[in-house]
Amino acid sequence: MSFCIGVDLGGTFIKAGIVNEKGDIVDSLQIPTGVEANSSLVVMQNIKDSISNLMLKNKDKKIKAIGVGVPGIADDKGNINIFSNIRVFENYPMAKELKEEFKVPVFVDNDANNAATGEFLFGAGKGMSNFVVITVGTGIGAGIFINGKIYHGKNGCAGEVGHMLIDLDGRPCGCGNYGCWEAFASASSIIKRAKSLVRKGVKTTLIKYYPDNINAKVIVEEAKGGDKISLEIFEEMCRYLGLGIANIVNILNPECCIIGGGVSGAKEFLLEKVKFYTSLYAIPFAYQVFEIKLAEMGNDAGILGSAALAFTSLKD
Amino acid sequence: MSFCIGVDLGGTFIKAGIVNEKGDIVDSLQIPTGVEANSSLVVMQNIKDSISNLMLKNKDKKIKAIGVGVPGIADDKGNINIFSNIRVFENYPMAKELKEEFKVPVFVDNDANNAATGEFLFGAGKGMSNFVVITVGTGIGAGIFINGKIYHGKNGCAGEVGHMLIDLDGRPCGCGNYGCWEAFASASSIIKRAKSLVRKGVKTTLIKYYPDNINAKVIVEEAKGGDKISLEIFEEMCRYLGLGIANIVNILNPECCIIGGGVSGAKEFLLEKVKFYTSLYAIPFAYQVFEIKLAEMGNDAGILGSAALAFTSLKD
Repeated sequence: MSFCIGVDLGGTFIKAGIVNEKGDIVDSLQIPTGVEANSSLVVMQNIKDSISNLMLKNKDKKIKAIGVGVPGIADDKGNINIFSNIRVFENYPMAKELKEEFKVPVFVDNDANNAATGEFLFGAGKGMSNFVVITVGTGIGAGIFINGKIYHGKNGCAGEVGHMLIDLDGRPCGCGNYGCWEAFASASSIIKRAKSLVRKGVKTTLIKYYPDNINAKVIVEEAKGGDKISLEIFEEMCRYLGLGIANIVNILNPECCIIGGGVSGAKEFLLEKVKFYTSLYAIPFAYQVFEIKLAEMGNDAGILGSAALAFTSLKD
Repeated sequence: MSFCIGVDLGGTFIKAGIVNEKGDIVDSLQIPTGVEANSSLVVMQNIKDSISNLMLKNKDKKIKAIGVGVPGIADDKGNINIFSNIRVFENYPMAKELKEEFKVPVFVDNDANNAATGEFLFGAGKGMSNFVVITVGTGIGAGIFINGKIYHGKNGCAGEVGHMLIDLDGRPCGCGNYGCWEAFASASSIIKRAKSLVRKGVKTTLIKYYPDNINAKVIVEEAKGGDKISLEIFEEMCRYLGLGIANIVNILNPECCIIGGGVSGAKEFLLEKVKFYTSLYAIPFAYQVFEIKLAEMGNDAGILGSAALAFTSLKD
């Protein structure tokens, strides 16, 4: 059995795990990222500590490589270029530094790309060459597989689907633009919408959770439970998810779109609606060879995706 | 010097030419497509006639291969699957039939893909591996180059960018959907808009051309000449072109977008405005490595693109 370490660098936590080639996590840990120190030194030390802790506890397992997923853009050499949440890593040679420390190959990529690599190696994307994994959470990111490999584009930005404009001059997005897809179809977008409706006095069972406990999960629960407003909010999100996925179908003609991220926890309730709307908006000839699936990696997607990056990069 | 024949199958005319490896058309002809007979036999005979005429007149030139561009979707074997304008060719094995007739390799692809291959081999796309050629005319089509090759997607539909939805429930599109990009940024869309404004009595010099002589060219001319309404129409088209190109930038992070088709005749007047709007809507990190160029193939894009398909396919 061979093993790689997967590290998921998040804005709040660093999650790391030892993963075997079948995709089983044999050991894992979680520590705070330490962004509040606003220092790359501190965050890098925390990453190194998490890796060396795992290695120390598992001396019997030879680690072949380390994969890291970052909430930003990494180039082919594992240098980090821009970061959405953790600002301390502009142009940071993360792969090089970790490789020097641990003397094994280290690969770094964007977390949405790694989510796709995880599905490709261990999950819903097995055996496929041209597919897209969409992670729907605070924003919407994508990892694009073309000809059996992650497609990075010119400087690592490929897959920034959340900022595809679908309504010029429409809802404001966190990026500063108006009308981005993620302003209509992300978890944050429906939370915002729900809070706004409660504030306006619209009759909804969501008032129980207002303001701080309204999240995507309770919106789905209340929608399933019969709350008309929750259902409308959820339905609208699915409609916009369908629109964006149809755009991806029309541009890339992939064989599959895999939906992951927090919102995918709604499972069939989400899948059925998103399929319906995608079928309305996509070119029929492209849609007939296309399918939409739920991601299979679940809560450990970050660790598994990063480990999958390490396994697949070793093979290249 | 080596030669290929490029055939451009249009809804009205078949254009064919003998092209050398530098991209010079050494002989060419044009005959009616003959769609009114509504028979694949008739159209195929016209294609064969145009090829054999060229061959007869140029017996001294050894033809290495034939490339055909069709306004529809072709698979990797040159079978035509669906057609936008010429309905007689559903599931038609065009490459096979022409190969049997002329005893040389024959390659068939979508005309927007061939436009991209033409720019790649002979024009503005030389030396690039990841770029998109957008053809803006009646509709908007695209040929996508990824890793130095046309990307076809699962069943040849990749690049149907004209039907990317940018305004859910917005302007009706010829495809039956609402809010497609080409309903806002194609030549037909601005012609439609111009006619509608004239009909409403808005003061514009376009009235001189109403109704049948309003086309993209006169709108550009009147805009340049100072007509405020023509300028507004053109500016709006450029804004929407910028939006769609920005979406392509955010999804694919290409190094370049090349604009061809009738609308690109407006040259710098178009280019400057489209660049401006794209820069507003694209992710800055992706935009900083991106450029927008005008296509270089001009009126012979169809013949040159189809010949380029033949030349590049021979090399594979």
